[in-house]
Parts: sequence; C-alpha cells; structure tokens
Amino acid sequence: MTPMNTQIHLVSRPQGEPSAGNFAAVQVPVPELQDGQVLVRHQFLSLDPYMRGRMNESKSYAEPQPLNTTMIGGTVGVVEQSRSPQFQVGDPVVGMGGWQRYSVVDANQPGLLRKVDPRLPIAAYLGAVGMPGVTAWYGLTQIMQPQAGQTITVSAASGAVGGAVGQLAKVRGCRVVGIAGGPDKCAYVKEELGFDECIDYKACPDLKALSVALKAACPKGIDAHFENVGGQILDAVMLRSNAFSRVAVCGMIAGYNGNPLPMANPSLILVNRMRIEGFIVSEHMQLWPQALKELGGLVAQGQLKYRETIAEGLASAPEAFMGLLKGRNFGKQLVRID
Amino acid sequence: MTPMNTQIHLVSRPQGEPSAGNFAAVQVPVPELQDGQVLVRHQFLSLDPYMRGRMNESKSYAEPQPLNTTMIGGTVGVVEQSRSPQFQVGDPVVGMGGWQRYSVVDANQPGLLRKVDPRLPIAAYLGAVGMPGVTAWYGLTQIMQPQAGQTITVSAASGAVGGAVGQLAKVRGCRVVGIAGGPDKCAYVKEELGFDECIDYKACPDLKALSVALKAACPKGIDAHFENVGGQILDAVMLRSNAFSRVAVCGMIAGYNGNPLPMANPSLILVNRMRIEGFIVSEHMQLWPQALKELGGLVAQGQLKYRETIAEGLASAPEAFMGLLKGRNFGKQLVRID
Repeated sequence: MTPMNTQIHLVSRPQGEPSAGNFAAVQVPVPELQDGQVLVRHQFLSLDPYMRGRMNESKSYAEPQPLNTTMIGGTVGVVEQSRSPQFQVGDPVVGMGGWQRYSVVDANQPGLLRKVDPRLPIAAYLGAVGMPGVTAWYGLTQIMQPQAGQTITVSAASGAVGGAVGQLAKVRGCRVVGIAGGPDKCAYVKEELGFDECIDYKACPDLKALSVALKAACPKGIDAHFENVGGQILDAVMLRSNAFSRVAVCGMIAGYNGNPLPMANPSLILVNRMRIEGFIVSEHMQLWPQALKELGGLVAQGQLKYRETIAEGLASAPEAFMGLLKGRNFGKQLVRID
Repeated sequence: MTPMNTQIHLVSRPQGEPSAGNFAAVQVPVPELQDGQVLVRHQFLSLDPYMRGRMNESKSYAEPQPLNTTMIGGTVGVVEQSRSPQFQVGDPVVGMGGWQRYSVVDANQPGLLRKVDPRLPIAAYLGAVGMPGVTAWYGLTQIMQPQAGQTITVSAASGAVGGAVGQLAKVRGCRVVGIAGGPDKCAYVKEELGFDECIDYKACPDLKALSVALKAACPKGIDAHFENVGGQILDAVMLRSNAFSRVAVCGMIAGYNGNPLPMANPSLILVNRMRIEGFIVSEHMQLWPQALKELGGLVAQGQLKYRETIAEGLASAPEAFMGLLKGRNFGKQLVRID
C-alpha cells in the first residue's frame, strides 16, 4: 500500500511578515522507490531564520524557494524503506527533507543523507550537533578566533546558534556576554548555559542604553562578536569594540521583512580596525566533520546544553515559523512530525 | 646663529569643517642639537585626510592632536645639522616632521627618520613611495587579495592612495575600475593611470544611478574594493559585490565632519558573504620594507604614476588642508616649504 505524504508548499511570496496564506498543505502519494533511493519518515523538522530569506524572489545568498514546491528545511527521521545498500530500514538519519512527512532521497548523492549516532537524542542533529552547532563553531573558530581571556559577545544568545557560540567560547577560556530578549531568556543564558553575563536588550530603550549595558558587562571592551540579529545591537557592539576585533555575521533577522536596517556608524570599522565577515555554513562542508566531532563530544559530556521549542504536528509549521521570526521560541525551534 | 623655526599649531578643535581660525603660525628658535640629534630642514609637507580625525578630541584610531602644538604630518627634507653618526649633512630624509620648517629628530629612535634614494624625486617619498603608496599596497595585498582576472574597484581613484591601488592591481592582472569626482579626474585615471574604467560619481545623482554605472563597468561583479570615502559609494559597491568579496576600509572621509554616514544595507555583508576590514598602515611597519621595494621599483620603471598638487609655502597649509577635505586637490596634496 502506498503511504500518503503531506507537504507544506510555499504558494505566494510574503510581503513583509509571512502569513498563513503564504503556505498550503498538499497531499501526494509517496512514489515507488527507484534503485539507490531511500524513503525517510521524518520525526522532526527544523525551523530556521534563513528560510525567510529564501522566500524572497530577490537575490539572496541562495536560490529562492520556488513557489508551489515543498519548503526546504533540515529533518531527522528513520529509514522506512531502502533500495540502497548504504542504508538499512530503521537507521536514524539527518538530511534536508523539507516541510513534509516523508522524503525520498538518492543515497548515491554524497552528503544528502547522513546516519547519526543513536546514543544522542535524534533532535540534537538539528541543533547542537547539526547546522546551528556547526554555524556557531565556524563563526567562532574561523572568523572570531578568540584567545583565552578575551571578551566575546553574541546576540540571540538563548537561541540554538547563540547558545552554542557562548559555550564553545567558554570552553576556550573567554569571557562570554550574551544579548537576549527578556529576563527569562537572560536567566537561562547565565544560569543554564553558563555565560558570564547576559544583557536584556528589551530593557534597553535605545542605542545609548545598550551601549552603557555593554560597557558594564565588558569592562575590557569586546574582542569578537557573533551577530545573529543586526540593527541596533550591532551598532552598540561596534561602539564597544576593541582594536582588531572580529565580527562574524550569521544573521540579520531584523532586516528580513523587507526593511534593511542601516549600520549607524560604519566608520567605526576603520576607527577600531575591525574585520566584519558574513558566512554561510553550508559553503564550508569540508569543516563539518571537525566541527561535529567537537560538538557531539561536548553534548555527550553535558558541556554543551541547549533547549528546544517543539511545535506539535506538521500543520503547525507555518505558525511556528512566524513565531520564530518574532522571537517567540526559546532555544531551537522544531516541529514534531505526526 | 640660531635659525628661527615656523610652526603651525592646532589652537582649537574644529566643529564640523575646519577653518583658518583653528590654526596659528608660531615662531620659535630652533634649539641647540643634543648628542644623537639631527636637524632636518623640510622641503615638503604631506597633507592627508587622517589629520582631520586627529583634530577631534573623541576616540579615534590614534591619539588626538594636542592643542597648541605643531600639527603632525609626514615630511621630506635634507639634514642641515647632525650630531648623529647615522646621518650626514645633506642626506635626503623622510620622517614625521609635522607642519613646520625644521624638525629636530632623535636619530637613535629607530624609524623616526629614514634616508631615501636620491635618484627618485624626494616628494615621491610622501606619496607613491611613502605612506599613501604603502597604504595602497597593504590594502590590496593583505586584505583585497585579488586574483588575476578579478574585478576590483577603488574610490577616490585619482588620489595618491587610490591611484596606486589601481596601478598595483593592474600589475597583478586585474580589471580595475575607479570612482572619482568629475570628468577631468576620470580622464586622468583612465588615460594616465591606465585603469580600465572610471565612474564619475558626480554624474550619478543617487544610489541607483551609481549602482547602474558600476554594473556597466563591472559586468562580472566586484571581487574586491578599496574604500577611501564611504557613504553612498560603499553602498553601491556592496550592491554589486560578488560572493566572498573583500573590502579594505582605508578612509571614510565623508563622515569626518561630525556626521557619521550610515551603511544603507549591512545585510549584504551576509548575502554576499563579504569581508570588510579597516586598517591603519602605520600599525603594520613590518611590511613596509617589502611594500617600499615594490613601490620604488615601479616608480623607477615608470609603471607607477602619480600626480601632485603643491601648495606654496608653509602658511598655505591650513587652506590647502581644507581644500583637500573638499576634494579640491588632484593627486597627492603637498606643501612646498619655503
């Protein structure tokens, strides 16, 4: 009997904030497997800010999501059928299955599907031991390159990427200051993730207040920064940056909804001899094995903690995604696929 | 007989554009030389945009110029008296003598005074074979790192730094596009300096027009950029930047007069995976010998051309400096010291 697949398609491009009407659920039969193919039943879908960029038609760092096709996204699940000798039924796997219950994967294309260690919780492969974790690792080790004793800052510090940046920096002997929204997130960042300080940007009404808070939390200035947000947070960090500081630009979430946020004072790049570098972790696949080795080891040892917000059911993905863009999630946003 | 020295002091800090009243000429006797000291009679003073930054009290990339002291500045001249075995009367030298007719230099402090090759025109040591040339060389070779066949852009292309950037890039096999103000400067950049194209930003009324002009001049996009100006030029370059492009930030002259110019769309740093890096060449002295060797060789062979605007007499320095900030000079701005 052919199982039915449920897919969520992008059916129109959002103008500004996405709404439910931009998405539609579609039922299609799962196709017969061809030789070399694997059928994966997804257990979790990852929701990430980068997806908003893909919804635009305009030039972004990747191809736009085509209309009337399944939204892209990272997934973990279990092999349900296999016509490839590389995968057995029951194997736990991670891949880019998209916003759907099942995916059919060509096992001969290297990198599309990867078996994971069954001793770790499978959802970790969408977070701390997945793209968010490697994103944190890459930005920290390849761009920020902090020395022990230096001060680093990270925005969206309670998120999957930000939390990992700070914990990886603590392992390296840095003073780590997070920036997050609200007292609950800040308490989590300090008490559970072990950051030295966490600034509640919602308690800072303007650039000056944020800059004053950063000065208090970073008495020796900022040597390196991981930017997930952009806008006023980056402006304030630049005011407190030390000479030769490095900024890894991973996200500019505040500008996704059609309004680019300016950088208030780019001359600080010169004044502070800063290096600001944007990156996309999927373009550096050669470093993933090294990153995943450290990340998996730290998770197994309890040295890399994370939190998940789980939306129940594939149908909840659009609303959960809209909530993610508004910062309603706490930690990695996942969808449990029913 | 003790000669008299004329010095130009900064006597008040400019608010916005500097004016003649911020400076005062002061007559003082030249002091007796102590053992190890050298008296240099200056022939040329270099005027450079960085001096505006030093006139502010606020944090910049260097110590502020103290009030009621001689303005700092690069100078070339001839040794007139020497109580150091390292320098003979008549030696042509380059140093940081400041806005004055004479300077007394401690020859035992390494790097303060350097003998130059008498076969090159002495003023070249303030330009193509001096700080502007090394600035161009550093930004190009250490930050922009262009490959042969890549397209590079440079703002203030007719200036001492910009002109050298482009010519050094041509030697390396790049397509070189300058940005300069007015048809005369653009003609000079193309015809005399040998750039492939030069865009007249004064003929571009807005960001869109500048971006369109850049697209036409850089059909394969921009791989690396040397920024002397900031503001709209950098915004337009970012719109045309290729993936993994590099920007060397050397100057933000348009923002010096008290109004920081925002960067319109910093999310392009991420979209284009750009690296933007500010630098100050005096912090990289270890590379100067290598840079000066290439620069001196190219000048001697006629492969590195430059133009000078010479103001006559030390007293003309303040006005010439104000003109420099308004872009009235054409090539390296010098003052011939009477």
